[in-house]
Amino acid sequence: MAKKVLKFGGTSVGTVERILHVAEIIKKEFVAGNEIIAVVSAMSGKTNELIEQSKKISDNFNKRELDVLLSSGEQVTSALLAGALIKVGVNSKSWLNWQIPILTEGDHSNSRIINMNIEKINKFLSEKGVAIIPGFQGISKFGDITTIGRGGSDATAVAIAKIFNADSCEIYTDVDGVFSSDPNKIPVAKKIDKISYDEMLELSTLGAKVMQSSAVQTAMMYNIPLEVKSTFTDREGTKIFSQENIDYTKSVTGVAYSKDDAKITLLGVEDKPGVAANIFEPLSRNNINVDMVIQNISPDNKTTDLTFTIKREDLLNTIDIIKKNKNIKFENMNHNDKVSKISIVGAGMVSTPGVTYRMFRGLAEEKINILAISTSEIKLSVIINEENTLKAVKKLHTIFDLD
Amino acid sequence: MAKKVLKFGGTSVGTVERILHVAEIIKKEFVAGNEIIAVVSAMSGKTNELIEQSKKISDNFNKRELDVLLSSGEQVTSALLAGALIKVGVNSKSWLNWQIPILTEGDHSNSRIINMNIEKINKFLSEKGVAIIPGFQGISKFGDITTIGRGGSDATAVAIAKIFNADSCEIYTDVDGVFSSDPNKIPVAKKIDKISYDEMLELSTLGAKVMQSSAVQTAMMYNIPLEVKSTFTDREGTKIFSQENIDYTKSVTGVAYSKDDAKITLLGVEDKPGVAANIFEPLSRNNINVDMVIQNISPDNKTTDLTFTIKREDLLNTIDIIKKNKNIKFENMNHNDKVSKISIVGAGMVSTPGVTYRMFRGLAEEKINILAISTSEIKLSVIINEENTLKAVKKLHTIFDLD
Repeated sequence: MAKKVLKFGGTSVGTVERILHVAEIIKKEFVAGNEIIAVVSAMSGKTNELIEQSKKISDNFNKRELDVLLSSGEQVTSALLAGALIKVGVNSKSWLNWQIPILTEGDHSNSRIINMNIEKINKFLSEKGVAIIPGFQGISKFGDITTIGRGGSDATAVAIAKIFNADSCEIYTDVDGVFSSDPNKIPVAKKIDKISYDEMLELSTLGAKVMQSSAVQTAMMYNIPLEVKSTFTDREGTKIFSQENIDYTKSVTGVAYSKDDAKITLLGVEDKPGVAANIFEPLSRNNINVDMVIQNISPDNKTTDLTFTIKREDLLNTIDIIKKNKNIKFENMNHNDKVSKISIVGAGMVSTPGVTYRMFRGLAEEKINILAISTSEIKLSVIINEENTLKAVKKLHTIFDLD
Repeated sequence: MAKKVLKFGGTSVGTVERILHVAEIIKKEFVAGNEIIAVVSAMSGKTNELIEQSKKISDNFNKRELDVLLSSGEQVTSALLAGALIKVGVNSKSWLNWQIPILTEGDHSNSRIINMNIEKINKFLSEKGVAIIPGFQGISKFGDITTIGRGGSDATAVAIAKIFNADSCEIYTDVDGVFSSDPNKIPVAKKIDKISYDEMLELSTLGAKVMQSSAVQTAMMYNIPLEVKSTFTDREGTKIFSQENIDYTKSVTGVAYSKDDAKITLLGVEDKPGVAANIFEPLSRNNINVDMVIQNISPDNKTTDLTFTIKREDLLNTIDIIKKNKNIKFENMNHNDKVSKISIVGAGMVSTPGVTYRMFRGLAEEKINILAISTSEIKLSVIINEENTLKAVKKLHTIFDLD
């Protein structure tokens, strides 16, 4: 017997038929003797539909009311799933954010779960009830409804697993697990059976959409075992553990890529302390997220070249801010709005010599020019021209034996 | 300056464009210096859509969860309307059932509002805010979401007007007001400018769908002035007062009809005390609502004939219950499942001689047979064959100068 948090994403509960199917999955786990808390997303498409409606009213729709609006989506799924479980003979109850309550802090539409009351739900579980909790939402200390950002149902599930001291947290989704690359684009991509939190975190951050990265981060911090698996097949999913429990046979676990990036290079920047801060501080103040930053060694010790990447949609705004910024001096600025970032991720990389070299040689063989490079302990990212994205991902997938 | 409760029905908030239009109506009232609480229904079609979903899961969907499900509809409208008001420059906030809270008692899907906290909202009103409250719902003393029956947003509006001691309660809908008969079926039907609570109550109970009858009843009990008016035109609506404020120029105010009725007659029923109770007690226990009851004078003082009407959908069940009931003796039972009830309503009827006679003569002129008659102080109802419904309503409309 275990205490399990099961999270079902939007496509898993996208229709009434699928909700009935999810009820059967939960029933199976429940009948096997487990205590179950299920966390649900809004039915697929629902959140976008509500956002559309709000945008028709105002592009700058009031954030408090947007949270009231959007939170209705998960409420609907929770009620339908609780009703479906009762229908198949399992005692169940939906618990809304304010009924638990789930306390959050931070801004509307971007809050964080800080605590929740576990007594009532633990009592219900001990009375053989399955608790259904809407993901993605909570209440503030003022008693307002808050939401925790898109994809926030993962964060809810992990927070619940942590606060309820659950034995595991299973993320049910529409794919079989975490893949070595995007299986829709790279047909030879393979499901990964086991992966470390760190690798998963890099993959989520780098664009693998399977799990939200802040949720992985929380799971890592509190050592909560995760499993990503399919709602629609019986196959084993991907287990996510801490690194020491994984026996690495491969240096590289996966290849991720993100499109919609843009690159800016400032040439001949004055090379003295505080310059980078001068450049990035006004960008951060304007909510522009800078991803990679590469500063070349300056040959004359006086000026340097600085390259960084941002989301493509922020390009014009960024150029504008830099041009208006009197605090930074540079000789020239160029930009490229058709770039993508390719990353190889693997906890085994650090102990395997030659990974970097093999990556660069592979790209060279495909005549793909590398525009910028950035590395970390378990990740190696390069910026290339967007048109080469899939060619690069396929090549790297093959080079590192992931096919 | 007045404190007003404005209620907007499902068609009034049926699209985002209409919600923006409602925001303009509220803004006008607000700018004129009034304190406004707006009560909203779910967008038209929404509640039915949610009920459909629940029925796909189970015909007997759990009632607690059904209330969680359905209450999301008004929540969505509340958020969108509050956002729309903010967009047009009016300070506004949605207040959900649990945030106020609105306390109810009684069963799920059929509860009654018993109290609500007025402090927070009164403070908000005094700070020049427009409060938006979802109709149709509240919470139980156990902290569960409850709903107060279909059309319950009217009841919420009147309860709020009462508890907040509002000066008026305006019901915005998709027609210009209360009509002398159904304007879709009787083209000569006219809008009534003023009507008493009693008459309105009879009309609502008798099938005029403009306002829910329990809401009219509450308004009458607490003497809350009502006005039914259109969201889509600037025309004056129908004012609903207590009787003493109305100057009657006509004996009959309106003609109502209900279809979907069925009639049962028990012939040769033993005529002794307690017989009627024996018949109707088991029906009530089975939630069968008996409408009209007519007991003919028994010619021999030993047996009598008893006729009553019920909803057509309850006919088979009713017959079954009566046959199985060993406590009642009767010689024969006949039934007619194709009848309708036509009623004339008017507070002036009691003081106008000949109304009854004129009604019967009019129906006779149209060769319409009367199957049963029932009267009250301000109402006269007859049961006729369903096929004659519109012919009867038109005739009575003309006879009583309502065209």
